Amino acid sequence: MSSKALDYESLNENVKKVAYAVRGELYLRASELQKEGKKIIFTNVGNPHALGQKPLTFPRQVVALCQAPFLLDDPNLGLLFPGDAIARAKHYLSLALGGLGAYSDSRGLPGIRKEVADFIARRDGYPSDPELIFLTDGASKGVMQMLKAIIRNQKDGILVPVPQYPLYSASISLNGGSLVPYYLEESANWGLDVNNLRQSVLQARAKGINVRAMVIINPGNPTGQCLSEANLREIVEFCFTENLVLLADEVYQQNIYQDERPFISARKVLLGMGPPISKEVQLVSFHTVSKGYWGECGQRGGYFEMTNLPSQTVDEIYKVASISLSPNVPGKIFLGLMVNPPKPGDISYLKFELESKAILNSLRRRAHIMTDGFNSCRNVVCNFTEGAMYSFPQICLPPKAIEAAKKARKVPDVFYCLKLLEATGISTVPGSGFGQKEGNVCSSYVFHLRTTILPAEEDMPEIMASFKKFNDEFMEQYEDHKGYSRM
Amino acid sequence: MSSKALDYESLNENVKKVAYAVRGELYLRASELQKEGKKIIFTNVGNPHALGQKPLTFPRQVVALCQAPFLLDDPNLGLLFPGDAIARAKHYLSLALGGLGAYSDSRGLPGIRKEVADFIARRDGYPSDPELIFLTDGASKGVMQMLKAIIRNQKDGILVPVPQYPLYSASISLNGGSLVPYYLEESANWGLDVNNLRQSVLQARAKGINVRAMVIINPGNPTGQCLSEANLREIVEFCFTENLVLLADEVYQQNIYQDERPFISARKVLLGMGPPISKEVQLVSFHTVSKGYWGECGQRGGYFEMTNLPSQTVDEIYKVASISLSPNVPGKIFLGLMVNPPKPGDISYLKFELESKAILNSLRRRAHIMTDGFNSCRNVVCNFTEGAMYSFPQICLPPKAIEAAKKARKVPDVFYCLKLLEATGISTVPGSGFGQKEGNVCSSYVFHLRTTILPAEEDMPEIMASFKKFNDEFMEQYEDHKGYSRM
Repeated sequence: MSSKALDYESLNENVKKVAYAVRGELYLRASELQKEGKKIIFTNVGNPHALGQKPLTFPRQVVALCQAPFLLDDPNLGLLFPGDAIARAKHYLSLALGGLGAYSDSRGLPGIRKEVADFIARRDGYPSDPELIFLTDGASKGVMQMLKAIIRNQKDGILVPVPQYPLYSASISLNGGSLVPYYLEESANWGLDVNNLRQSVLQARAKGINVRAMVIINPGNPTGQCLSEANLREIVEFCFTENLVLLADEVYQQNIYQDERPFISARKVLLGMGPPISKEVQLVSFHTVSKGYWGECGQRGGYFEMTNLPSQTVDEIYKVASISLSPNVPGKIFLGLMVNPPKPGDISYLKFELESKAILNSLRRRAHIMTDGFNSCRNVVCNFTEGAMYSFPQICLPPKAIEAAKKARKVPDVFYCLKLLEATGISTVPGSGFGQKEGNVCSSYVFHLRTTILPAEEDMPEIMASFKKFNDEFMEQYEDHKGYSRM
Repeated sequence: MSSKALDYESLNENVKKVAYAVRGELYLRASELQKEGKKIIFTNVGNPHALGQKPLTFPRQVVALCQAPFLLDDPNLGLLFPGDAIARAKHYLSLALGGLGAYSDSRGLPGIRKEVADFIARRDGYPSDPELIFLTDGASKGVMQMLKAIIRNQKDGILVPVPQYPLYSASISLNGGSLVPYYLEESANWGLDVNNLRQSVLQARAKGINVRAMVIINPGNPTGQCLSEANLREIVEFCFTENLVLLADEVYQQNIYQDERPFISARKVLLGMGPPISKEVQLVSFHTVSKGYWGECGQRGGYFEMTNLPSQTVDEIYKVASISLSPNVPGKIFLGLMVNPPKPGDISYLKFELESKAILNSLRRRAHIMTDGFNSCRNVVCNFTEGAMYSFPQICLPPKAIEAAKKARKVPDVFYCLKLLEATGISTVPGSGFGQKEGNVCSSYVFHLRTTILPAEEDMPEIMASFKKFNDEFMEQYEDHKGYSRM
């Protein structure tokens, strides 16, 4: 009998081509070990609540009340909920005809799109149009929608930073397009060099690739750098000159751990450049409730905002969004709350401030503990995490370790990360999953791994000690003491 | 300057090809009229809460508590929540490491997948494996995932019932495949004739189409019929003989309004047929919390179950699901509650039974009111809604109305539905959005529209009277009193 449509051999090839390291071999092995009873520290995904971060109280109170609107008439309600949470729940219920159980417009609730537009206007100093804001089930879904619209065939190329967050490589594969890498400079704290960009585009064009869009991740994932305003201006100019759509992944905009380079949105930079650039460059910006000090990953709340897109295209994006009818509604209430947190004078203001500051300050301290910890390890160097939620140390593996990996039929960094997992329970993502610069002088020995900075602060010293012990013993085991490096 | 990647002309053609009538021209016009202050009755989408259906109390209590776990320690909790809702919230929180704010496994929470498997086993009498159940953000997302895996190029065909729910035509377009229609027989209460099916496959193959899968919607959308066991056996046999994957859209399995044909799952029929068929036919079944007496559309909770798929394929589906990391978690708690409602003896049992029975019984009455109402109108006939949430009356338009539509540059049924909307505020979907049998003797005069049976029962008589008044006046206006039909 011939093969069936859902036999592996006959599946859509683009589906098979997808690689997604964040939940790849390491994650699967970690899940197995966890089932066997081993304590696993899941640092493979930026999933703060899974590592013990408590949700912010006020937004949870509001959404709980929206889920149970019948409580709003209960005389005992005030014993469990503060007045401003009750008022806010009534506000969102008034925006959601039929409540949380009704499909919203496929772009999300109009009232919340308006709140997002107001937030963007306050943030950037330029007005924003709710009609150009679509709410999505997390930022990833929005990115996938836009790539679907842009990619027509395998000759369509998307510029993606390397190292990159594998959402991009995976979605480009799934849509049958071509990933055009541009390399971030580790030695310049993962900075972006526009000459480098130009070279990538030239090389791709020489291969017949039609480069159509450029992705930036700011703050960077997995690399943690924050882009300066000057750098953003160069990028926007480059997109203008090269006629590229700019896709700005800004989901970590609240996660900043230094004061020299605050977050600046690509949109603010674009609009500040004036015409013709400000009127011409097509920009789509992404944000979410999953990151920041919210970390509400499981609620799936995100949005994207479109700048300089023709209305006919916006209509097409709307049409495709309408196939799945509606993003989830509760996640969109969180989005409304994120862009409109309690204000000074509100009953819940102080508590909310206390909770959110505590999370951000602790993340900042953890970023330091982790960078310092990695830098104290043998053969490991690590840039400071300026923003986002990740540490991305460089690890120089001795030739003997690489031979051992070959024998075990593993990529060297996968080999290292698996050993780390088995020895310590720390579940990381091998750097190869994010892409690696080719042709680097010592690239055959230099690898990376990504870990989040999210384990609880009080556990951090022990985790870093456990990492150091594993790493230094690993290096001891595989290093050639005759000294290859001394030659 | 050459066109930009997000200019309309240069978008992915598959995106442009998509048609999605449920939120098409009629919906957009209705939204405009609503903004202008007109009262609109949105019957274009099966969205019960938007039309006033109240959510079931118990599941909302449980999910509200899961959102606000800090309340579980409050001494006043018992004043607002019953003990079994508190216990159930604790149960789901124990299944969700990190609570609702954490990404779950990309297939959904393992504990809830287990509860779904137990439900399926009880329903069908055959064990079900949680590893073959994936939780999704609504059933539509699952359907789109499976079609993505099956469709490789435009020569890959999917058999779809016509009239069909446009999710299928839209997703097939988006993935660049071919829709192969098979026609339901209106004169046989929208029954499915296997000879018809065979003919559709032969015709498609003659055009070089590789027919790979078959969709059934049971109970039918928009047609409302329930498939008999005998009919389901024929379908499964057909899929076996023709080597087709069977995609069973069973989202309306709780919405049954007659006693002659209860819901039977495709899986139960398949497994009951014994080998080789029961071991060979690849089946994917879909279900949701959006329909039934739940109607929790906005929460986006669904699942699909895979039968006879090789594990390598299941791994590929898992990998693709992992790109967007996790379905929303709160919607999945609703799914757990749907497959495990309160049991006799539980504190909330009687209230839950009362609420759910009231909804189902009212839907059954509304199905009758609507069918009878349509059948009392001039030039309108309508099959009874055996199941699902829709009425799909046939409307015979006089030639003059068709000329008037042509003059207005509208498809005749769109013309009729727009007039209906302007006159009465009733927002329906023109039948052409669901596909129409070609070559019908009188097909140039015979049209349909879809309306949900969801408006509040007390409003139903007025709505049907308003429809009848509009329709009969419309017919009066356009009918040729010299009598074309008497010739």
